[in-house]
Amino acid sequence: MTTYKLLLLPGDGIGPEVMAEVEKVVGWLKRAGLADFETERDLVGGAAIDVHGKPLADETLARADAADAILLGAVGGPKWNGVTYDIRPEAGLLRLRKDLGLFANLRPAICYPALADASALKRELVEGLDIMIVRELTGGVYFGEPKEITTLEDGSKRAVDTQVYTTAEIERIAHVAFDLARKRSGRVASAEKNNVMKTGVLWKEVVTRVHAEHYSEVELEHVLADNCAMQLVRRPKQFDVLVTDNLFGDVLSDVAAMLTGSLGMLPSASLGATDARGTRKALYEPVHGSAPDIAGKGFANPIAMIGSLAMCLRYSFGLGEAADLVESAITRALAAGARTRDIVGEGQTPISTGEMGDAILREL
Amino acid sequence: MTTYKLLLLPGDGIGPEVMAEVEKVVGWLKRAGLADFETERDLVGGAAIDVHGKPLADETLARADAADAILLGAVGGPKWNGVTYDIRPEAGLLRLRKDLGLFANLRPAICYPALADASALKRELVEGLDIMIVRELTGGVYFGEPKEITTLEDGSKRAVDTQVYTTAEIERIAHVAFDLARKRSGRVASAEKNNVMKTGVLWKEVVTRVHAEHYSEVELEHVLADNCAMQLVRRPKQFDVLVTDNLFGDVLSDVAAMLTGSLGMLPSASLGATDARGTRKALYEPVHGSAPDIAGKGFANPIAMIGSLAMCLRYSFGLGEAADLVESAITRALAAGARTRDIVGEGQTPISTGEMGDAILREL
Ligand SMILES: CC(C)[C@H](C(=O)O)[C@@H](O)C(=O)O
Ligand SMILES: CC(C)[C@H](C(=O)O)[C@@H](O)C(=O)O
Repeated sequence: MTTYKLLLLPGDGIGPEVMAEVEKVVGWLKRAGLADFETERDLVGGAAIDVHGKPLADETLARADAADAILLGAVGGPKWNGVTYDIRPEAGLLRLRKDLGLFANLRPAICYPALADASALKRELVEGLDIMIVRELTGGVYFGEPKEITTLEDGSKRAVDTQVYTTAEIERIAHVAFDLARKRSGRVASAEKNNVMKTGVLWKEVVTRVHAEHYSEVELEHVLADNCAMQLVRRPKQFDVLVTDNLFGDVLSDVAAMLTGSLGMLPSASLGATDARGTRKALYEPVHGSAPDIAGKGFANPIAMIGSLAMCLRYSFGLGEAADLVESAITRALAAGARTRDIVGEGQTPISTGEMGDAILREL
Repeated sequence: MTTYKLLLLPGDGIGPEVMAEVEKVVGWLKRAGLADFETERDLVGGAAIDVHGKPLADETLARADAADAILLGAVGGPKWNGVTYDIRPEAGLLRLRKDLGLFANLRPAICYPALADASALKRELVEGLDIMIVRELTGGVYFGEPKEITTLEDGSKRAVDTQVYTTAEIERIAHVAFDLARKRSGRVASAEKNNVMKTGVLWKEVVTRVHAEHYSEVELEHVLADNCAMQLVRRPKQFDVLVTDNLFGDVLSDVAAMLTGSLGMLPSASLGATDARGTRKALYEPVHGSAPDIAGKGFANPIAMIGSLAMCLRYSFGLGEAADLVESAITRALAAGARTRDIVGEGQTPISTGEMGDAILREL
């Protein structure tokens, strides 16, 4: 059996707590003989700042580069509000994404049947919801230059961010979206602001061409990003695959995640290009943040983190069956009434992070 | 009695239909002796392209500059999808905003009691909702340079948009937000992405300073824009005044509008700086778009447009009582069961654009 090298980067806040539950599942997968892993742990974000003075040490990046896949918890928290911009916790995550070329961020927004009532939306609007957001992750305003604050003669300041997209960057993310759509319902919506942004104009043009040349059997719809945000609230089930740029993807995927009522439950995959050996770099992380307010209290929901491991099994190791096992154990644990505080309903008693991990293990 | 010069720019799609209802209300205000207006009509957007070959003729801009206030319907539609970027319909609206210096866009998101059930959100989350979004409107990625698409040596393209904010731009919009908060609940949330964007870093810094120097009695909270989008869906009533940049404001205000279940009902004001004479340039427009799919059918809801006139009475002419009259006529017409198609509930019969206008007039 292949031994996969897994790098665990718990990060900050609730990251370490939810990662501990993933380690339980990893242990089970090994014992069950379903997969063999060699796991390493390292620091990222604020935890790395505290030790190395920066949010991603070069050795950690080298380890990430050598790993078959990375699982990341979350980064950031008020403790590091005072650090300078260049070494803020998020910079560690952004460097991982950029330096490993993880351009395709897949964010499924799924409404678990047991949780449809936890949504802010009416049940019928979200029941059965299953959207896949494909967010471009290494371009756009996150990385474009110039990105700076300059002081003007009168002492006031001027800040600049630059959004850049090239044909090639848009092409490759469009391929990811269309390929996914083929395996799903065959529909893609592409969101930009071509009525205001030149990057939106190029985005629409390239997506349209890739579609016409290679995926004419997939249904493609263009939607303005502001309208898309609205439509997500109004009638989310109209979407299947939704492809968009880095910044719109950041906001729209958070809206979609919140719709499901299950923010603490949603995993994500950040994938690189497939190389000659057929492998690709990949990082898996929950959509939720580090939630410093509840860190260390055992309140955090580990499902998004465990679901990220399932995505890893599927996308990085081709272990679709093991992934299915983990995912259906999550569904069954929920159906059996296991609820952390974030998803507890009326008359239900919340369980702790560890108890939720155990409940899932019991179903395995 | 002062005679106010009002420029009507119906624009495209449903713009002319909803503007016709405003003209009825203007007629009533005159007859009732509450205000005197001199109204002119002109073209903007696609309608102007058809006649002048560009979306805002210089004469129209001059007229807008000379007017005491402008009412705009909506711009754009598939008919003009083929026109070049520089003369697309939206460019007319953007030029009005920029050249008249309308930097402060106020977008109230109010949930009308009669319509709480029309929201996608559960009733208890939106009932009584009353948020004021203060969107910066003449800066950011909408107008920053470079903004271009260049062709690279290999024939592929590179698109660039630039987001720029200066201290002065952020200061003035912060003042607008804090001044409004003083008259409301005394709370401001400021949204940016200071963890990724330098404009976000400067935004947070300047808002924090303006707050400390002038408005320490107002409660200020900073929120990341992605989290803000989520929180708007999760628990919208936590917000009162929400100040943000041009692009985030575009998306967040659409989310907020959709929450209310009353997109066709929400007005907006775009205000310039107050000059030595105490007057300020101002444009009022519905938050909804031109809705080309229903244009000309008499389905459109004129309430957002009539509400925009009410905002105009209040903010531009100091006619708060007349504004109250118009707004309460809207509320009463709704309470009496008047519903256009967009807000019709089960068992209710929709009325036309004109009938809704008449129903409001009857209440006046
Ligand atoms: C932590 C932050 C830098 C990050 C982002 O903006 O991409 C986060 O919001 C996300 O969506 O993964
Ligand atoms: C029509 C378009 C240019 C405009 C914008 O993006 O500002 C619209 O979406 C709005 O919110 O007023």
